[in-house]
Amino acid sequence: MATPEPAIVLLSGGLDSTTTLAIAKADGFAPIALSFEYGQRHAVELDGARRVATALGVAEHIVVALDLRAFGGSALTADIAVPKDRDLHGAGIPITYVPARNTIFLAHALALAEVRGGRDIYIGVNAVDYSGYPDCRPEYIAAFERMAALATRAGVEGHHVRIRTPLMSLTKVEIIRRGLALGVDYGLTRSCYDPDAVGRACGHCDSCRLRLAAFRELGVTDPAPYIER
Amino acid sequence: MATPEPAIVLLSGGLDSTTTLAIAKADGFAPIALSFEYGQRHAVELDGARRVATALGVAEHIVVALDLRAFGGSALTADIAVPKDRDLHGAGIPITYVPARNTIFLAHALALAEVRGGRDIYIGVNAVDYSGYPDCRPEYIAAFERMAALATRAGVEGHHVRIRTPLMSLTKVEIIRRGLALGVDYGLTRSCYDPDAVGRACGHCDSCRLRLAAFRELGVTDPAPYIER
Repeated sequence: MATPEPAIVLLSGGLDSTTTLAIAKADGFAPIALSFEYGQRHAVELDGARRVATALGVAEHIVVALDLRAFGGSALTADIAVPKDRDLHGAGIPITYVPARNTIFLAHALALAEVRGGRDIYIGVNAVDYSGYPDCRPEYIAAFERMAALATRAGVEGHHVRIRTPLMSLTKVEIIRRGLALGVDYGLTRSCYDPDAVGRACGHCDSCRLRLAAFRELGVTDPAPYIER
Repeated sequence: MATPEPAIVLLSGGLDSTTTLAIAKADGFAPIALSFEYGQRHAVELDGARRVATALGVAEHIVVALDLRAFGGSALTADIAVPKDRDLHGAGIPITYVPARNTIFLAHALALAEVRGGRDIYIGVNAVDYSGYPDCRPEYIAAFERMAALATRAGVEGHHVRIRTPLMSLTKVEIIRRGLALGVDYGLTRSCYDPDAVGRACGHCDSCRLRLAAFRELGVTDPAPYIER
């Protein structure tokens, strides 16, 4: 059997990125997990990422520290309240939007892919249960890929990086179903924007509500801990 | 007089980025300088950036710490010797190439522009005295701009960011001439890839040689300190 090719997988430790990592493995890659510590208030996310990386047996797990707090401007990096129980189908981009976050994350993934000789980057973005983030749309991902082809030595030499978005067109229910089929233990994952000090999910932010609704629809109990559900 | 609009200027403290900052000011913007501490061996570069930002009276100077060393893969971040006295017109991308560096820098500038309400990002890339970096070419910059229009809330709302590259088609001689006309003190700037501990330039790396040759052609003495010139 040939040695598996490396692929970079952006891993927050949440439900979507964990499922994406399991899919990258199932696709036959040797995943290199890449996580970011960016002054997010939900730093418990990183503990989740570490648990997930260990459980799924990645080739390498790299945690890069960013300091987006110097910029301000988002509920996830500055001192702004996370909205609770809002209308999920309401208009506009929510306050939890972090400016250019996926561009910063993918730029690092691009650098790492080039250094490790990988040509594939996985990101768990989704346009179905989409909560209004511009940098989760397929047209954004396609534009990043075109830019990436011109940005690097590998690109110039004809080895274009592919941004793989296996969750793009799946509903949250389909994502969880796929992950369960691949043996993902969702008890290890955290999706909450506003967990408590011991890492229990709030149950009321957009992310918790989408997740809980999907598990309910599947008739499965979400194994992650919640303050209230 | 209207309040000047903010513009983000990527500032390394070298000759090109300093001239770019002076041009952004001359264009009527209130520049916000953005520098990166990325484990570069030439950390004296940052001292240069601070001196330049102060001398040119920027509205704000933000230094963001990156840890590209975790990735390895370049003479500027890892323990690889900087090439000296090589053929500047030789083929290929030099070892001093840092994977996806401008993409990472511009991604941060994009985030900062959105948070500060700016629509202009200046970067001192150049395709004439081009030393082989893929992410200094106009087609790369254009692709980044197209991606940026899809990446952010501002972009979605129709406020597209413009990546301004005033040095793109200038020779090194023309860049210095332009800077001198704008009153830039090049004694504050450092361009060397391999300076000594007190910040003197080596005089032999690609960057030193291009710079020294241009000053010689202008009949002006480069006011920066060199170990040997």
